[in-house]
Amino acid sequence: MYLGIDGGGTKCRARLEDADGRVLGEGLGGPANLLRGVEAVSQAVLDAAEQALSAAGLPLSRLRDVIAGLGLAGANVSSAYAQFLAWSHPFARMYLTSDLHIACLGAHAGADGAVMIIGTGFNAGIYTRDEGYELGGYGLLLGDAASGAGMGLQAVRHTFACLDGVSNGDQLPHRVLAALGCVTTAELLERTIDASPAVFAQLAPLVFELVGSDPAAQTIVAEAARTADAYARRLLADQPGRLSLTGGLAPALLPRLADDVRAAIAPALGGAEAGAVGFARRRDGVGC
Amino acid sequence: MYLGIDGGGTKCRARLEDADGRVLGEGLGGPANLLRGVEAVSQAVLDAAEQALSAAGLPLSRLRDVIAGLGLAGANVSSAYAQFLAWSHPFARMYLTSDLHIACLGAHAGADGAVMIIGTGFNAGIYTRDEGYELGGYGLLLGDAASGAGMGLQAVRHTFACLDGVSNGDQLPHRVLAALGCVTTAELLERTIDASPAVFAQLAPLVFELVGSDPAAQTIVAEAARTADAYARRLLADQPGRLSLTGGLAPALLPRLADDVRAAIAPALGGAEAGAVGFARRRDGVGC
Repeated sequence: MYLGIDGGGTKCRARLEDADGRVLGEGLGGPANLLRGVEAVSQAVLDAAEQALSAAGLPLSRLRDVIAGLGLAGANVSSAYAQFLAWSHPFARMYLTSDLHIACLGAHAGADGAVMIIGTGFNAGIYTRDEGYELGGYGLLLGDAASGAGMGLQAVRHTFACLDGVSNGDQLPHRVLAALGCVTTAELLERTIDASPAVFAQLAPLVFELVGSDPAAQTIVAEAARTADAYARRLLADQPGRLSLTGGLAPALLPRLADDVRAAIAPALGGAEAGAVGFARRRDGVGC
Repeated sequence: MYLGIDGGGTKCRARLEDADGRVLGEGLGGPANLLRGVEAVSQAVLDAAEQALSAAGLPLSRLRDVIAGLGLAGANVSSAYAQFLAWSHPFARMYLTSDLHIACLGAHAGADGAVMIIGTGFNAGIYTRDEGYELGGYGLLLGDAASGAGMGLQAVRHTFACLDGVSNGDQLPHRVLAALGCVTTAELLERTIDASPAVFAQLAPLVFELVGSDPAAQTIVAEAARTADAYARRLLADQPGRLSLTGGLAPALLPRLADDVRAAIAPALGGAEAGAVGFARRRDGVGC
């Protein structure tokens, strides 16, 4: 059996297939960005894998018969990649790559192409089979301006500035405070000072909702679109064949991209979990 | 004896005075922002205090005769404040407040007034004796656009964008990579993914150095100045009496501020360590 895992900053998805490519079951786990540490990520992967086995009506002992392909956010950080490989996993064999690699394999059904992932985080890249390059994916502090967490963070920063009386707030700061259950600056600080990217990403739909009526929301979305446009043009310059936009916020951001970029984007043919299964098959030498 | 401690994101300074206000010795310790955790900060405070005692020719056993006043960055985060008070410190008595409070006491020699601190972090506020309010001080992720760490972070983000080929780089990205001892994106990511605010703040002088010759450096400094201007005008609207600009980057940023703001800024009359000693005296009921 082959298990594909797609791990991001908010959740991870599992897909279990038999040797003939029939889907046996699917599962969902917690945040699985490698930068969150081996323990949290391995638990999220296990949760998703066990759910997929249960959905397939199989006992957990069958994990040892599973060949797993994992595509995880944060795998571009080499120290995190190396640390995760030291995990004594329960699978027959485990292959690890980035979330971008499996998204690429899924979106183009194994053919060459480029993807931009706009989810909790943001990254972009091109793969020709297993060779390629990746851009972005630097995390909330260092990059991810076009990501859900990045947009949510800008909304929070704007809210602090409004509370401080150095920026004019419209609806956005009130909605941010309500969404986070805060009233005062001190409460907002306690709520966000150690918050994970997933917490900020939960605010992104709010920013999109207010894009037509709140100037700050409009600025945040426009900046994210501008960044995504720049990465798309960078990828298109290398003539990747196909370019797809994936990730939870892709449907919301797509209409905001520049005309030339939108015209160049092709729909994803499959999900990243399917790409992860394909990756496991190929690495295990049986496939496609 | 009274000990004043001024703790920020890059270092903490200690000043030891006798009961008559004569300076007995001074000391220096590591980063002492409360958000770095009780253990690291208490060690930095101890290091600085022990250096000050040594400089005064006194044995460390005399710490038990010392009345300490600590002004620490991050004290505005109430959970961090409470955690630090649980430290079983070696002093006779210890009083804790924010770095902004003691900077205010030092800058205006105990009189009412406002300060903006531009160091590793950024905060601003007004104190009338021990009553006042503080703005900013939200840390590198959530705020601090006008801080040394914030400017260094923007330089790093710009460098990533240049390496990704989505932004045009001039001298700044090359200088950032050289300063951090990196060549590739992967090296830059490993170097900065878990870096403390102090690491980013070390890049701020470089940004100021290039402000006349590199467009990105110019944008970063202009944005920091714009933020500082907004906070200054916010404080001045409350007629604080005096407004001073303190912190390691104050001399570099001051000439970049708007004319009206620059005209309103008065020099600091004393350092934050002196303010911390005054705070300890007052809280201990003997003074000023």
